[in-house]
Amino acid sequence: MDNVRVQTKELSFSTKGNGEIIDLTDKIQNALHEAKFKDGIVTCFVVGSTSGITTIEYEPGLLQDLPNLMEKLIPVNDDYKHNATWGDGNGFSHLRHSLIGASLTIPFEKGHLLLGTWQQVVFLEFDNTQRQRTVILQFMGV
Amino acid sequence: MDNVRVQTKELSFSTKGNGEIIDLTDKIQNALHEAKFKDGIVTCFVVGSTSGITTIEYEPGLLQDLPNLMEKLIPVNDDYKHNATWGDGNGFSHLRHSLIGASLTIPFEKGHLLLGTWQQVVFLEFDNTQRQRTVILQFMGV
Amino acid sequence: MDNVRVQTKELSFSTKGNGEIIDLTDKIQNALHEAKFKDGIVTCFVVGSTSGITTIEYEPGLLQDLPNLMEKLIPVNDDYKHNATWGDGNGFSHLRHSLIGASLTIPFEKGHLLLGTWQQVVFLEFDNTQRQRTVILQFMGV
Repeated sequence: MDNVRVQTKELSFSTKGNGEIIDLTDKIQNALHEAKFKDGIVTCFVVGSTSGITTIEYEPGLLQDLPNLMEKLIPVNDDYKHNATWGDGNGFSHLRHSLIGASLTIPFEKGHLLLGTWQQVVFLEFDNTQRQRTVILQFMGV
Repeated sequence: MDNVRVQTKELSFSTKGNGEIIDLTDKIQNALHEAKFKDGIVTCFVVGSTSGITTIEYEPGLLQDLPNLMEKLIPVNDDYKHNATWGDGNGFSHLRHSLIGASLTIPFEKGHLLLGTWQQVVFLEFDNTQRQRTVILQFMGV
Repeated sequence: MDNVRVQTKELSFSTKGNGEIIDLTDKIQNALHEAKFKDGIVTCFVVGSTSGITTIEYEPGLLQDLPNLMEKLIPVNDDYKHNATWGDGNGFSHLRHSLIGASLTIPFEKGHLLLGTWQQVVFLEFDNTQRQRTVILQFMGV
């Protein structure tokens, strides 16, 4: 059996801000192929504290429903103390980040991510302006 | 020291739908014993986008409280665009999935999951019908 | 290339209860240095079912905003069936745990956690009394 090894990659991309949802599935699968792993995990980690990562069925209805849910649970306009500290008005972005979380771990086998057919990996831009973003993909396995 | 290795297993089971909560703790611990790992992690990953995985104290009160919370935060009946797309009426299931998340990573030592005494691993069926489900258990360690 | 190895550590600390938020970033980074890993992941796992772990910008405004959000989504005082079972009045603590989650996986490279500058790892005490807490840090990598 081959030895387990580690390889760290970065996905870098620009976002438009304001609730944009970006499907990362193909990029992660491609990075897995390039790194030539068969069995193991990829840790997907968003760098920074105003975005998030999760899985969803990437279809137009849910691309409206998820931002609507975020606005219902954590509205853009509310009395956030963070806004008083920094004046950048993105307290809601930070709270959405802490709720959804920074890390997602996906197992793979025979070189394929073990996702469902209608289960895509998505980056959630919670910030209120366009941003340059980095997602760490760290592969560990054989 | 032994070499780190990887082993992928699947848990397959039927659910009744509608908020069912299934305790997977013993099945995961048994799979760990069978796979003969001592120290490492198990990545638990729900395949599909209308269920979730988390930890909870598995007692009758919370088995009512958690579905009640989900209904409060993401009601079954609301104006979800997903429902207009597919007509299957499970927009709420998808949103609950994205909120709770698809992956949980549990460390183990000397062959035992490092859970608290009153901390169980639970599969959350968010869909509105009975389903056949798969949870990936991928062990990595020595 | 060095062989991948596993090392399990514990952080133990006391909390004051009632929504306390504790920055664990330096402790995790120090444990990483002591364990002499270069590239890999650290699985951070809260033992027990009334606390949580996530990342946030650790600044005074958000240290008020996050507890306020938790109180809005899952109020301390509500009709939780858990409270009828145990009489300890911490049903809300359990639900916050299940929502935020027990595990966080952070990749590291060249001995440094791959966090953003304003992204700290925080332990969230959801219980209503002071507690003695354990967070598992399990390092895997080279």
